[in-house]
This record gives sequence, C-alpha cells and structure tokens, in this order.
Amino acid sequence: MEKSIANRLKRVRDALETESADALLETHPPNIYYLSGFTGDAGILLVQPTSVTLFTDGRFTIQAKEEAPGVRAHIHRGGPLVGSVGAYLRRKNRIRVAVSPTRLSLASWTILKKAAGKGVRWVASDGIVDRLRAVKDAAEIDRIRDAARVGSEVMEETIHLVRPGVTELDLAAEIGYRMRRKGASGESFEAIVAAGPRSALPHARPTSRQIGRNELVVLDLGAILRRYCSDLTRTVYVGRAPGRVRRWYQAVLGAQAAARAAVRAGVTAGEVDAAARNLLQRKGLGRYFVHSTGHGIGLEIHEDPKLARGQKGLLEPGNVITLEPGVYIEGVGGIRIEDDILVTPRGAEVLTTAPREFLEI
Amino acid sequence: MEKSIANRLKRVRDALETESADALLETHPPNIYYLSGFTGDAGILLVQPTSVTLFTDGRFTIQAKEEAPGVRAHIHRGGPLVGSVGAYLRRKNRIRVAVSPTRLSLASWTILKKAAGKGVRWVASDGIVDRLRAVKDAAEIDRIRDAARVGSEVMEETIHLVRPGVTELDLAAEIGYRMRRKGASGESFEAIVAAGPRSALPHARPTSRQIGRNELVVLDLGAILRRYCSDLTRTVYVGRAPGRVRRWYQAVLGAQAAARAAVRAGVTAGEVDAAARNLLQRKGLGRYFVHSTGHGIGLEIHEDPKLARGQKGLLEPGNVITLEPGVYIEGVGGIRIEDDILVTPRGAEVLTTAPREFLEI
Repeated sequence: MEKSIANRLKRVRDALETESADALLETHPPNIYYLSGFTGDAGILLVQPTSVTLFTDGRFTIQAKEEAPGVRAHIHRGGPLVGSVGAYLRRKNRIRVAVSPTRLSLASWTILKKAAGKGVRWVASDGIVDRLRAVKDAAEIDRIRDAARVGSEVMEETIHLVRPGVTELDLAAEIGYRMRRKGASGESFEAIVAAGPRSALPHARPTSRQIGRNELVVLDLGAILRRYCSDLTRTVYVGRAPGRVRRWYQAVLGAQAAARAAVRAGVTAGEVDAAARNLLQRKGLGRYFVHSTGHGIGLEIHEDPKLARGQKGLLEPGNVITLEPGVYIEGVGGIRIEDDILVTPRGAEVLTTAPREFLEI
Repeated sequence: MEKSIANRLKRVRDALETESADALLETHPPNIYYLSGFTGDAGILLVQPTSVTLFTDGRFTIQAKEEAPGVRAHIHRGGPLVGSVGAYLRRKNRIRVAVSPTRLSLASWTILKKAAGKGVRWVASDGIVDRLRAVKDAAEIDRIRDAARVGSEVMEETIHLVRPGVTELDLAAEIGYRMRRKGASGESFEAIVAAGPRSALPHARPTSRQIGRNELVVLDLGAILRRYCSDLTRTVYVGRAPGRVRRWYQAVLGAQAAARAAVRAGVTAGEVDAAARNLLQRKGLGRYFVHSTGHGIGLEIHEDPKLARGQKGLLEPGNVITLEPGVYIEGVGGIRIEDDILVTPRGAEVLTTAPREFLEI
C-alpha cells in the first residue's frame, strides 16, 4: 500500500501544480483513505509539497499511527476540526490551498476562512482526487475482482432462494449474511430486493411483502472486500413469463451487450450510454429507461466516471464501471441487468460472473 | 403520521417567526421525512406559512404523491436541484429564507444564491428541525422501543456465539442477519465487533481476525425499525479475566450508572457527561475515556442532544439518548457499555434490556 500511496501523492502534487495551489485540503473520507490509509470517521488531510498532515481527534490517535504511518498526525482538542486546520494555515504565509466547494459546508467554510485569516489564498477545485481514483491500479483491481466474485456467488445463491412466499426482507437478510460469511466486511449498499410492481421502482427498499407467482424480482447487491465495492443486478421471473416480459428482458440484455461492446479506452462515457439507450429506443422502450447506464465503482459505490447521456470524458484503462440498463413499467414491474467491467486498452473485461440468461423459477 | 406532521410543521413555523424568517429551506433527508413523510434520496423541502413544497425529480414523482400527500411536489428537470429552488424563490419578492449552513455545501450555496437573485434575504439558522426532532412524540418512542428490543435480543444471542476461533466478521454477519429476521429493515450502522487489542479502537471495523482466549470483545450494534434507530454496546471477556480488567469493567459500569442517575428533565447534557467522566477520573481512568458520554438517537444514529463536556442544553422529557462511557487502553483492549435511555420528567427509562453484568465466556 505504501508504494501506491506515494505514487498517488505524487500525482496529487502534480495536479496541485497545474491548479497553481501549494496544498490540498481534503475532507472526504474515501479520499483521505486513498491518500493516507487512515480510515477514521473524523479527519482532514492537508497535502503539502513535502508533508502530509492529518488533523483528527483523540479517538483516532492510535488508529492514525497504525494506519497512516507516513503522515504527521495533528491531534485536535475541542471546537470544530476545520478551526484547527485554519489556525495551522494561518502560520503559513501566502499559502495557496485547494478546497472542494461540493465537499465543504458553508458553515465549515466560514470557520475555516476566519481561522486561516487573510494570508491564505483559496483555490476552488473539485475532483482532484476523485479523478485520480477513477483509474485503478493493480492492487485496487484485485480488490474489486474479489468483491465482484463474492457478489456474484451470493447472487447465484440468492437466486436459488427466490420462490413464492419468501419476503423481500428474508432475501435481503440472506444476502448480507452470505456476503459476510464469504469474507465481505459489509455491503456496498443495502441490497435491493423488489418483487412484482415494486420492481418498477429503481430505488426500492426491501419490505416484508411476500413474493408471489408470476412476478418479476429484481436483486441488486454489492459486497465490500478490503474497502472496495462491487455492484450487480439480476432480474428473474417467478413462473412462466409472458411473451412481452421475455421481449423486455432480451432488450435489456441486448442493451447491456451493446454498451459492453462500446467500452474501450478512448471512447467517451456518453457513447457507452448511447449504445445502451439507442438499442432500447429501437425496441420502443426508450422512455422506460429512466436512469443512466452506469457509474464508476471503487472505494465508493458511485464514483467517476459517470456513464450518462452526453458525458464527454474519455474512458481510460483501469476505469472500473457498472453497466446497468433497465426498463421500469409502472404497475407491472422492472428489469435491470448490471455487471462490473474493467476498461482495458482494447475493450472490456467483465468482473462479475453470475449468469445473465433469462431465468424462470 | 399526518397529525404529527401537522404538529411538527406548526412548530417549525413558530420557530421561523422567532428567527424572523418567512420560509425554511430544508435539504437534510431525515428532516424532510420528519416534516413530510417523503423518503426519496433527492429532494429539497420549502416550508412556508401556508404551504409545503417538495422539489424533486422525475424518479420520485409517484413516491412523492404516495408518501407526502399534503405536500405540493415541484418536479424538476435537469441541472442542480438547488437551482430550481432558487428560480422559484426569485419570484417571491423580499422573502426571508432560513437555510442551514452546516447542511449546504459551498457549491450549492453559490448556485442557490445566484439563482434566487438579490431579492431574497437569507437567514443562517442551524438546527431548527434538529431541535424539534430531539424531543420524540409517543409514536416515535414506540418505534425506538421496538428497535431497542430487537437490538437487545440480537445482542444477547450474539454474545452466546462469542468463543475462540470465531472471527469478528462471523459475528457481524450473525448480527445483521438476526436483526433482519426479527423485522429490522437494516442496521443503524455497520456493527462493531472488536476483539483483543482491536477493542481499544472505539470505531473498529470487524475483520477476519479470530477471537482468541483471554481477550476482551466489544460488540456495538443497532437496529432500524420503521426508520428509527437503536444503539447498544456490550463488552465480554473470553476466559477468566485478570483483576485489572474486572476493575476497569466495574468502573465503566459505575460510570454508566452515575450518568443514568444524573439523567432527568432539566439537567444539562454536560452534567450527565460529567457524572460519568468524574467517576472514571476518580478511578484513575479519566484519560482512557476518549469520547463523549452519549448522543441522541432517532431517525439518525447520532442526533441531538450531544452528551459531551460542557454542553449547556437542558434535557427534556422525550429526549432519547445513549449513555456509553468506555475506557481504551492501547495494546490491551477496550471496554464500553452503552444503553438507550428515554428522558422522563423525573428520571430515565432504560429501553435496552441486554444484561450488563460482567460476563466471562
């Protein structure tokens, strides 16, 4: 880990130079972990050209020493943490500090600015670390691969438990349990198990509703292994599916295949989205595809790049993304198929292995 | 629910009058739920003297109608949601709008201010809804009581599974599974299972480390039932504990009892903290108690009131708080005991029922 952290810090410092900043003030916990190894809940990291300082409180003294040995810990006592950072910066004359306006509350900003005084110059700059994180190194890809394997195994096992009378919450309990038994530290998000008309809600929470006959069931789950997330979705039918449901399923599967075929380093994220979207539109299902085609995964379940309409950013080797087209028909049900994909120089490697064929249970 | 929502809105409007504001702009999802019933991920609520408007997007049209029938839904298309709110406010001449600087990012604030224009007057006001939420009504207390019951049952069951060779993650898996089987929709937070020296980390995450003989094991867990959280901690010893461990345990138990004895409506939160802290100091353990004594629970796992050093706010009947003193000795282990407490006019009612006696397994 230490070597990759050194490499990341170097890239942050290069980015700071481009932004004409001397230091990065980082408040987002996954970014702090990425640049230091520290996993505590409360911390602010200050990256300077020759030092990295972690501002945290007494609860995390031991943890900071263990997890972030290369970092100078500044143990803060009382008052808001940003106040401590501001007081520290006040002593650095004319330092230019990059901060992220989307990750700093108006209240923290007010305290920080006041504590730092007029000698500090602020550079508003979102996404310096997020952009680095979008390209995974070999160790990160290994971890996501593990998370994808566990997610896939649990998906296959859970699909075998789907039957009339089982509740959505029963299946959600099995998902969480089986993941942890396979070594996951937790779930990337609370698993979605949505049956019947509820499957038409892309963000449904599992309920005590029993699964009935002749229903679609959407299962969307992800495992965290060594801090990295996976995210996959399968949709099955309980009973013998009517023709239209089969056609919808094949269309979604086709849309996902089209997106996958479009993936390679150098294409825009928007082109991948368009590949899935155009296919669903040709099948007359475009208006039922109410979200974007995918997103990056890694330390967080949603990160860069976003695979949405019109996104101009280019895919790079080392991006790990989901492809998750879906159709949602109010009152009837929804179908979504989602896999995790590593972007390679010439194409895509699928990391999730659960079968994608239409399954009638 | 509708009746309590009407009552809450009345109290918000009273608070707005005190703050000389005409409207409240609320961005925090638990507060939006509290004032409307809406549970979607994306929304901003605007409370005015005779109306409540929910700004959200097309994914949540159906949900807004179902969950928040008393609210005017303003379905927003494209761009940042705060931009929509700003454009709406621009048409209200000289309106005074209360916003929460801790809950608004610097980026959102910049967009909002620009979209609203110079005709809007902003009132920086944190915690209007949080303060109301700190005092629970009967229906809320019922829900927390249920969550505390499920948490307590799972704690007792899990303690019986502690033995050498079991991993921290195994126990965490059991905790999540058993909660959901008992009707919890999820966990208030990822359960902490920390054995041996790892128990000295107040915020340890479970690992694949096997529990050994002669180790402390800290279990910290919470269930969510009908959206309300519980939070409790027990510490057990695997083997026959040395005298000093027993003394530490009794000191922590004594500190918790002292805090509980101090709880009643009308005392300050700081007095309750001091009761626990002073006892540990008298036992020579003050410097090992590295966090505060407790916090409110409800829709969130950490909410008002904070039971920390010097907090001047008065406890009120209907506050539901945790009391969780602990000691953490680097390289050796930690002990924490945590229960959920309802503040009553004359004292405290303990909602969590798992036994607190020192347990050697």
